Amino acid sequence: MAEQKADIALIGLAVMGQNLILNMDDHGFVVCAYNRTVAKVEHFLQNEAKGTKIIGANSLEDMVSKLKKPRKVMLLVKAGSAVDEFVRNLVPLLEKGDIIIDGGNSQYLDTQRWCKELQSTGIHYIGMGVSGGEDGARYGPSLMPGGHPAAWPHVKPIFQAISAKANGEPCCDWVGEDGAGHFVKMVHNGIEYGDMQLICEAYHVMKDILGMEQNEMAAVFEEWNKGELDSFLIEITRDILKFKDDDGKYLLPKIRDTAGQKGTGKWTGIAALEYGVPVTLIGEAVFSRCLSALKDERVKASRSLPGSNLKFSGNKEFLEHLRKALFASKLISYAQGFMLLREAAKVNGWNLNYGSIALMWRGGCIIRSVFLGNIKDAFTKNPQLSNLLLDPFFSERISTAQASLRQVVAQAALVGVPAPAFSSALAFYDGYRAEVLPANLLQAQRDYFGAHTYEILNKPGTFVHTNWTGHGGNVSATTYNN
Amino acid sequence: MAEQKADIALIGLAVMGQNLILNMDDHGFVVCAYNRTVAKVEHFLQNEAKGTKIIGANSLEDMVSKLKKPRKVMLLVKAGSAVDEFVRNLVPLLEKGDIIIDGGNSQYLDTQRWCKELQSTGIHYIGMGVSGGEDGARYGPSLMPGGHPAAWPHVKPIFQAISAKANGEPCCDWVGEDGAGHFVKMVHNGIEYGDMQLICEAYHVMKDILGMEQNEMAAVFEEWNKGELDSFLIEITRDILKFKDDDGKYLLPKIRDTAGQKGTGKWTGIAALEYGVPVTLIGEAVFSRCLSALKDERVKASRSLPGSNLKFSGNKEFLEHLRKALFASKLISYAQGFMLLREAAKVNGWNLNYGSIALMWRGGCIIRSVFLGNIKDAFTKNPQLSNLLLDPFFSERISTAQASLRQVVAQAALVGVPAPAFSSALAFYDGYRAEVLPANLLQAQRDYFGAHTYEILNKPGTFVHTNWTGHGGNVSATTYNN
Repeated sequence: MAEQKADIALIGLAVMGQNLILNMDDHGFVVCAYNRTVAKVEHFLQNEAKGTKIIGANSLEDMVSKLKKPRKVMLLVKAGSAVDEFVRNLVPLLEKGDIIIDGGNSQYLDTQRWCKELQSTGIHYIGMGVSGGEDGARYGPSLMPGGHPAAWPHVKPIFQAISAKANGEPCCDWVGEDGAGHFVKMVHNGIEYGDMQLICEAYHVMKDILGMEQNEMAAVFEEWNKGELDSFLIEITRDILKFKDDDGKYLLPKIRDTAGQKGTGKWTGIAALEYGVPVTLIGEAVFSRCLSALKDERVKASRSLPGSNLKFSGNKEFLEHLRKALFASKLISYAQGFMLLREAAKVNGWNLNYGSIALMWRGGCIIRSVFLGNIKDAFTKNPQLSNLLLDPFFSERISTAQASLRQVVAQAALVGVPAPAFSSALAFYDGYRAEVLPANLLQAQRDYFGAHTYEILNKPGTFVHTNWTGHGGNVSATTYNN
Repeated sequence: MAEQKADIALIGLAVMGQNLILNMDDHGFVVCAYNRTVAKVEHFLQNEAKGTKIIGANSLEDMVSKLKKPRKVMLLVKAGSAVDEFVRNLVPLLEKGDIIIDGGNSQYLDTQRWCKELQSTGIHYIGMGVSGGEDGARYGPSLMPGGHPAAWPHVKPIFQAISAKANGEPCCDWVGEDGAGHFVKMVHNGIEYGDMQLICEAYHVMKDILGMEQNEMAAVFEEWNKGELDSFLIEITRDILKFKDDDGKYLLPKIRDTAGQKGTGKWTGIAALEYGVPVTLIGEAVFSRCLSALKDERVKASRSLPGSNLKFSGNKEFLEHLRKALFASKLISYAQGFMLLREAAKVNGWNLNYGSIALMWRGGCIIRSVFLGNIKDAFTKNPQLSNLLLDPFFSERISTAQASLRQVVAQAALVGVPAPAFSSALAFYDGYRAEVLPANLLQAQRDYFGAHTYEILNKPGTFVHTNWTGHGGNVSATTYNN
């Protein structure tokens, strides 16, 4: 037993780490488990890992000594300072050609930094997005590795073995240089925020506009899961709606209607603003979590701010409108997410394979769905596709569904049920397909008050300043931007 | 002339800098002008500054030698590296008690950094927001100074003299410690983005839903400017709509419908995400600029993505609905902006006076309006007011206006005119006044797939994990957050 060398070490024995280790063990790899609180290692070996080939370590030095070369050490610890600390402590114990894999939800900028910093040491660094929650980790997650390309051949057999499979293909492939893997995972999580918010809004509409009972809603989600919305999140929503507590009553209404927001959803919003890409639906989804957290303020406001006097004026088709609205909004959100990936790839020089990314998300992860198979197909047919909405398959789908999205947004607005994600999806759609937007007025305003100049419609690239008032100067603002 | 000592020096002779100097000169202060390209100084003295008391300098050393003590040096240069470079070059030339004022659009974090860095030198640093465009700078801007409090008494007479006045009171007062002035200016600019976007959407609705001619729209904005919407931006929109080019045709349709976005609007969105405050309207306004910039993509998409078949079904009252919708959305946007100020003040330990901030914005700046006088009154009556929407005056106003906002959002959605800012305002309003939001489902989902636990409705602070599937583990995710 003491002579046994491990294929890979994994640091961090919270639920994700434990399950990934058990998954690797299932696939024949010998894993060395380590945790900062060493007692956890022993507990894990005596319990969850009992009867497996998994070995433990009682220090980083002990762990490193038990690894085959090139050594592979995977971190599943809290992003930020914990990752930084472990990497700093590991580097002196490793040698050229060894590989550190950060499988946590690190910011892609941190991963970029470590890739750069370790370049001279010859130690390879991988930042890998891992999605799928505890079940995914245990039985097949989606894995999105990026970083030093030289490391990929060494870890590929392990990660492609333990990853989910979609139609036999592993939901794990090399994403790109430096922070690309964590960036793609971040966008995945942002999209997950959007998908969850859309489902919440659909549930809210069913409950408060259509007055449906929980078992009726469960039946609708069950039905939806058989069609083009077939996905993990729709499936678990059905399960959640059905779930009864020990007292025989539904559990869902007993859960507090506040949601935390930190980490990757927020980062996706910030990246969207930084790269200047209108990822509006995810933005609204993140802000919706912030608003939900203000429960006390909301309860107070509910007593003094009135709602609508209007009653629902839709018809029996409304549930089908809702289904189509959810599909259309989801499509718009994914289109926005891929717009962000494309812009970030351009700025960072990543050569992203969008079809491959869709395949990585097709199985194993939280947003896995039949829909992602359609996205994979769209990019396989046309790797240069500039926008998902312009792919023939999706273009036809959204043409049919957009009228339903209009009905849902209008009814929600009239009756007074908040639908921020549905609304932002529709506003984006109508803006994206607008040959002319009112931003000419905005340019005129900026030139009026700040001499910022404006661009001439028929002479793109030509900027002029107009003295709108007759008394302003003719000096334009070259160095000072409002 | 060579013996004349200046009260203050100003570096940076673009349009804002020149106008601020002329403004100070009008008020009896002697200003020393300097610019990195020194030829600009001579040109300024020979032209715009001819016949004034303004003096020039041909180097930083020369400039510093011409100042009364404690020396006051104001920067009106590009935020970021230019500010950093000037501050670094100035510090060795200055002494304890001297004051550097950065009047550019710097990030508040940069101002925080300089305040901290200069602490030990005894040189005082002020980061001051300046708004009002070229006209404001010339005849009375809104000024928002923050930083080292010891500097305030020395610059107060100058800045309060040159600032705009609202009902006789200067639109300039001490904001708070370190980056508070620039933070307040940033939020001001974010609100400005929101106001401009709302006006653009109103213009779009008039043009494309109501089919109005430009002179009719100008008349409407003229009328609106007489009531509760009375503001600088409404006023200039009227002027812009009326403005005819040399060929006798309206200028507005000749301007390209793309708007740049960088700087303070984007930063406000990022700050909102960082502080976790749902500033949705500004977020949508920033993203709308990003979308407008994708002109070529939009033109392409307009050919394959269909709009609505529905026709406008409103009535003659719709213009009044639009006016009320604009007022309601504006109020919601300001409420969000003040929520952000409150949260940032809490985190940074700033003791912000919200009534005083409203007064600073009441006159001089781009968002100046009668409305800001109402906000000032609200905070004067109740300095502890938790949210603008809950002030009796505004609560009554929004109660009346919200039904109109519903009509505008619904009609825009049905007819197919993008109204992202109106929509996000309504969604926020309906969310903020919702005692129960659907975030309970979101908590359940996160616990289902990631063992993140959920909070119990009737036991705030108590988090539990449910084994939803029967086959997942009972380990909750303590260190790994999805």
